[in-house]
Amino acid sequence: MDKIPVGVLGATGTVGQKFIILLQGHPYFEIRELVASERSAGRAYSEVVKWKQDVPVPQPFASMQVKGLDDSLDAQILFSGLDSSVAGAAETAYAEKGHFVISNSKNHRMDPDVPLVIPEINPDHLAMVGTQRYKGGIITNSNCSTMFLAMALAPLHRAFGVASVHVTTMQAISGAGYPGVASMDILGNVIPYIADEEEKMERETQKIIGTLKDGVVEPAPFAISAQCNRVAVFDGHTETLSVKFERKPEIAEVARALRSFSGLPQERRLPSAPEHPILVMDQPDHPQPARDIWLERGMATCVGRIRPCPVFDVKMVILGHNTVRGAAGAAILNAETFVKLGYLKS
Amino acid sequence: MDKIPVGVLGATGTVGQKFIILLQGHPYFEIRELVASERSAGRAYSEVVKWKQDVPVPQPFASMQVKGLDDSLDAQILFSGLDSSVAGAAETAYAEKGHFVISNSKNHRMDPDVPLVIPEINPDHLAMVGTQRYKGGIITNSNCSTMFLAMALAPLHRAFGVASVHVTTMQAISGAGYPGVASMDILGNVIPYIADEEEKMERETQKIIGTLKDGVVEPAPFAISAQCNRVAVFDGHTETLSVKFERKPEIAEVARALRSFSGLPQERRLPSAPEHPILVMDQPDHPQPARDIWLERGMATCVGRIRPCPVFDVKMVILGHNTVRGAAGAAILNAETFVKLGYLKS
Amino acid sequence: MDKIPVGVLGATGTVGQKFIILLQGHPYFEIRELVASERSAGRAYSEVVKWKQDVPVPQPFASMQVKGLDDSLDAQILFSGLDSSVAGAAETAYAEKGHFVISNSKNHRMDPDVPLVIPEINPDHLAMVGTQRYKGGIITNSNCSTMFLAMALAPLHRAFGVASVHVTTMQAISGAGYPGVASMDILGNVIPYIADEEEKMERETQKIIGTLKDGVVEPAPFAISAQCNRVAVFDGHTETLSVKFERKPEIAEVARALRSFSGLPQERRLPSAPEHPILVMDQPDHPQPARDIWLERGMATCVGRIRPCPVFDVKMVILGHNTVRGAAGAAILNAETFVKLGYLKS
Amino acid sequence: MDKIPVGVLGATGTVGQKFIILLQGHPYFEIRELVASERSAGRAYSEVVKWKQDVPVPQPFASMQVKGLDDSLDAQILFSGLDSSVAGAAETAYAEKGHFVISNSKNHRMDPDVPLVIPEINPDHLAMVGTQRYKGGIITNSNCSTMFLAMALAPLHRAFGVASVHVTTMQAISGAGYPGVASMDILGNVIPYIADEEEKMERETQKIIGTLKDGVVEPAPFAISAQCNRVAVFDGHTETLSVKFERKPEIAEVARALRSFSGLPQERRLPSAPEHPILVMDQPDHPQPARDIWLERGMATCVGRIRPCPVFDVKMVILGHNTVRGAAGAAILNAETFVKLGYLKS
Repeated sequence: MDKIPVGVLGATGTVGQKFIILLQGHPYFEIRELVASERSAGRAYSEVVKWKQDVPVPQPFASMQVKGLDDSLDAQILFSGLDSSVAGAAETAYAEKGHFVISNSKNHRMDPDVPLVIPEINPDHLAMVGTQRYKGGIITNSNCSTMFLAMALAPLHRAFGVASVHVTTMQAISGAGYPGVASMDILGNVIPYIADEEEKMERETQKIIGTLKDGVVEPAPFAISAQCNRVAVFDGHTETLSVKFERKPEIAEVARALRSFSGLPQERRLPSAPEHPILVMDQPDHPQPARDIWLERGMATCVGRIRPCPVFDVKMVILGHNTVRGAAGAAILNAETFVKLGYLKS
Repeated sequence: MDKIPVGVLGATGTVGQKFIILLQGHPYFEIRELVASERSAGRAYSEVVKWKQDVPVPQPFASMQVKGLDDSLDAQILFSGLDSSVAGAAETAYAEKGHFVISNSKNHRMDPDVPLVIPEINPDHLAMVGTQRYKGGIITNSNCSTMFLAMALAPLHRAFGVASVHVTTMQAISGAGYPGVASMDILGNVIPYIADEEEKMERETQKIIGTLKDGVVEPAPFAISAQCNRVAVFDGHTETLSVKFERKPEIAEVARALRSFSGLPQERRLPSAPEHPILVMDQPDHPQPARDIWLERGMATCVGRIRPCPVFDVKMVILGHNTVRGAAGAAILNAETFVKLGYLKS
Repeated sequence: MDKIPVGVLGATGTVGQKFIILLQGHPYFEIRELVASERSAGRAYSEVVKWKQDVPVPQPFASMQVKGLDDSLDAQILFSGLDSSVAGAAETAYAEKGHFVISNSKNHRMDPDVPLVIPEINPDHLAMVGTQRYKGGIITNSNCSTMFLAMALAPLHRAFGVASVHVTTMQAISGAGYPGVASMDILGNVIPYIADEEEKMERETQKIIGTLKDGVVEPAPFAISAQCNRVAVFDGHTETLSVKFERKPEIAEVARALRSFSGLPQERRLPSAPEHPILVMDQPDHPQPARDIWLERGMATCVGRIRPCPVFDVKMVILGHNTVRGAAGAAILNAETFVKLGYLKS
Repeated sequence: MDKIPVGVLGATGTVGQKFIILLQGHPYFEIRELVASERSAGRAYSEVVKWKQDVPVPQPFASMQVKGLDDSLDAQILFSGLDSSVAGAAETAYAEKGHFVISNSKNHRMDPDVPLVIPEINPDHLAMVGTQRYKGGIITNSNCSTMFLAMALAPLHRAFGVASVHVTTMQAISGAGYPGVASMDILGNVIPYIADEEEKMERETQKIIGTLKDGVVEPAPFAISAQCNRVAVFDGHTETLSVKFERKPEIAEVARALRSFSGLPQERRLPSAPEHPILVMDQPDHPQPARDIWLERGMATCVGRIRPCPVFDVKMVILGHNTVRGAAGAAILNAETFVKLGYLKS
């Protein structure tokens, strides 16, 4: 099939950079447009980007001319890594012009008619795009720390009914973009605060695991309490989790429910789908960000230390690659699902 | 008054090094003996120690001859930073010979007749020393991560009754001693596991906040669930905490109970006592290990981000200096309390 | 004697913060003014500063009202930690109004009539202030990485004549101010480039060790080649040095020349003077920033690994605290020297 | 062609782990044997290894039974990552039994009849194997920090004649193996000392760039002065270099000589050969370990900041992946060269 022309919004940012790397040679999509702020517009990508990846700028894009937010774009799908200060209005404008915006930004995630999707969990929510007032549409993925929490909770909620959740995160600096966290703030330090992050984790998880009824998402009924910290890790969010269930399972049942979890991306063999979306680890000291984030090409949710909790029922440690599965990779998998399910009007 | 002759057991270890620094010029105590393993015995301290402090070896001790574990010692009190592989038998032997061992090691903490003491919380437990079968005695302080948890919970338990606690730690590498954590394991990484640490936090806190009745400690009745992680921080343990109470307090009441907390060390103005044992912080991103561990000369428990918890009642972040208040400083404050209360037989 | 009223320019920056800490309870100086950018003016210091020290804001200053650059100031001496983007014009303006500006900024260092002073080395250069066209005056201290190089070379140049120098630095992040170096750039990384730093080291060292003749400094004649790197260290610049001499000394002679070095600050017992300005270390793996920067209250230059060089004559490793001896402490010692030598017109 | 059976000595160490990863699916070689210390012998590889890579243990090897140093081996070539405490005698014994040992260990590098080879530079030195007294033979690659120095100097020496070299290294922790550097020693620190490393760099470089005459290597005549430091970087050695030449070149000539350098591995298109063995970078702040070590699959030597030196002629910054090009990858390229040149007797 002919490849679908796509663009990357916020192409110079850290998420934009990951989009470019992950979309190289993609079987469905071909990058036609790189969009950044006005001061970058009209210049070659390699001149305006502060590249922070450990592979060089992929060749065709180094010399591609960057467009501004007001330029018209030759792209059916736009992957958005826009900064939240501009994403709200810009994504709306693109959707109104007929583009389908696959957004990693927070702005529209809680809009009542915008699906907040993890394709293994709630691909049916994509139907909401049809109810949007736009000529095109907006589809969002979750916040990076929400991703791994929702991935771990969804199969457990189906199997045993989640009642309450405590989660504490230890999040990587790349989650704050560039320049983001000042080195004087994080070297040899922990910052026990990330603005709005706890609220995002609490409400986004409920929307993702929620039920779509008559075009409206009814949030999952369980309560979540999140505590978010920044640590001196480059990539990879680690989270400790304690869960109370409606029906208390055995530890082995929890491990089995997680290990056997799979969904539409696996059934349809989508290009970016991890073969095993959840990897359950047996070593007592895993998962670890410096060792495990690249499993399943950065698309896995790793779960370890599943054990009884003296207060709730079960505790565990979860981990994932925050800028792949937790950001750019999540958006690309959303787009693949959207296309595969036939939602893209051509 | 004449100074009390003391010795440091495990003098070459990281806790031993802190003992030496903190006991310099102490008004009650004078170091007469430095004790280490047999292979160090007979040699000058500065020759055998791998000094890891940011001040030099205090002058009188650099040339002091180190003794072995079997040598007889001129010291009424022995501060023990012995490794747990030898502390059990060695501390018992010293106590039998008539020394009072003020131990930071884990081995005897849960012995039914050994007090596990934080002087602000349970100085009355020191009376248990009188029931020991030793000519001398053994007094222990808590594990480093337990210290700050118990300090935060004790005033809250008194005021509102603690029902349940979730705690996740982000612990410094110095807590593992030297060489301890390999750099390849922690640089840019999180290790979500510290052997036995979670169990220690859960049961030690219950003993410390427990009630002494007829010479026996009845553990505090609340349940604790701990999840312990190692992070790339040199000194300072950060912990996120969520607490359910018997009587749900307002946030302001929690802050007030913590702020106003003080105990015997403050009343008796003990030399190592922090003026304010608990510091409540208002900045949204504090406490932080790289900024706050030296408040109150390393003897404070810092508490920040006191806020409502969507699952339990209140959540907060706590922090303290793991090798000062959480280890050597704790032992010294125990010794000061022990002496001030007149327990030292002369 | 009555204390001399002083002000701190750039009081909210990292150097400004160090000025405030180091000037607390100073025997000569009393801070009367804190000056920052216009947007901070009129507000309490604690409200506008992003405090990055491990002690709290000293009490009297937390509530002091910050002034702007245009406000008139009640201060004879102004310690300047101004950003170089504004320091040039601002310091000139203050000097014209009659203040004596003791500057840590780079802007005026190479002005022909401005002394660039390290009091142990060239206190006589302070006489240049009398030739300035200002009602007050401007005195500068060196760049942080220059400081330790000049301190090590000065006694060697006197004793043996320095011919050529290779120096490679490994510099701390605090040298770049706040927010300064992005964490994504330095965590687990080395940045082999610091803008203009190599040129500063090369020419400032020559001016400091140069000779004042008829009011003009004749630069020291030896050539320096500097290579500057940023590493993941919070405070403390480490430098490797290789030196060729006019008269090749024995290693022991080099150590002796360094160890015995002292100057006017030591003779006059200035308050901020280190007792031993240069500490020669014998351990093979010292000096280290995490262990040694606080020796002599952060005012020492540490030198270790003095050994033969297969290419030049001698190589060694040097280290110092970049924001104390290399910045704020250097300026304060300059001011103390200036006052002690009677240059301050009252 | 049939694959050559090979073994990995020291298979559980950090270099051994890299051998296993890099030899997966190798077109010439097939791992038949994993050899480690006696206490690992007889057990499955995955049970005895402390795996420190960011990909899992390659499947066929996880369950392979590890052999001890005394077991007989089914392997023509043995890749040795043995610890230097055992490598000397063990490698000799293997060579005597008829194996060809391709060693990364330091023990035999300076043996007069053992070639120390970088195939781009001195593949002719492999002929020395024929003069060895062994039934098999021993071939060595350089120390990790020597590798990048020799790679940068070789083309410059050919073109302009190297006269003198100053080099300062900033080396990664992985170079010290596991557990290697204690985290308390390196977190936020620089250790300005690595035992024997400076001597290795100085003499190994001379041997590699030396001339083979009548079976004996005449060392290159230029003098090198090395200063070696450990920094908080996981992988990647950065080195600053200053070079004096016999015939002083223009900067552009230096860049050209480096960029155009290639040798036998490139001509023969060996499987592990980098297409461009030296990458010259133009960005002012590159090369950086966290960005550039994976270029050319970890087999490149990156060179940046080529500029005039005020003391010598030219200075520059070099970088490479210490456990790939600097260790396991170097050995594999040596083996490929050895085979391709027909030295392997079958």
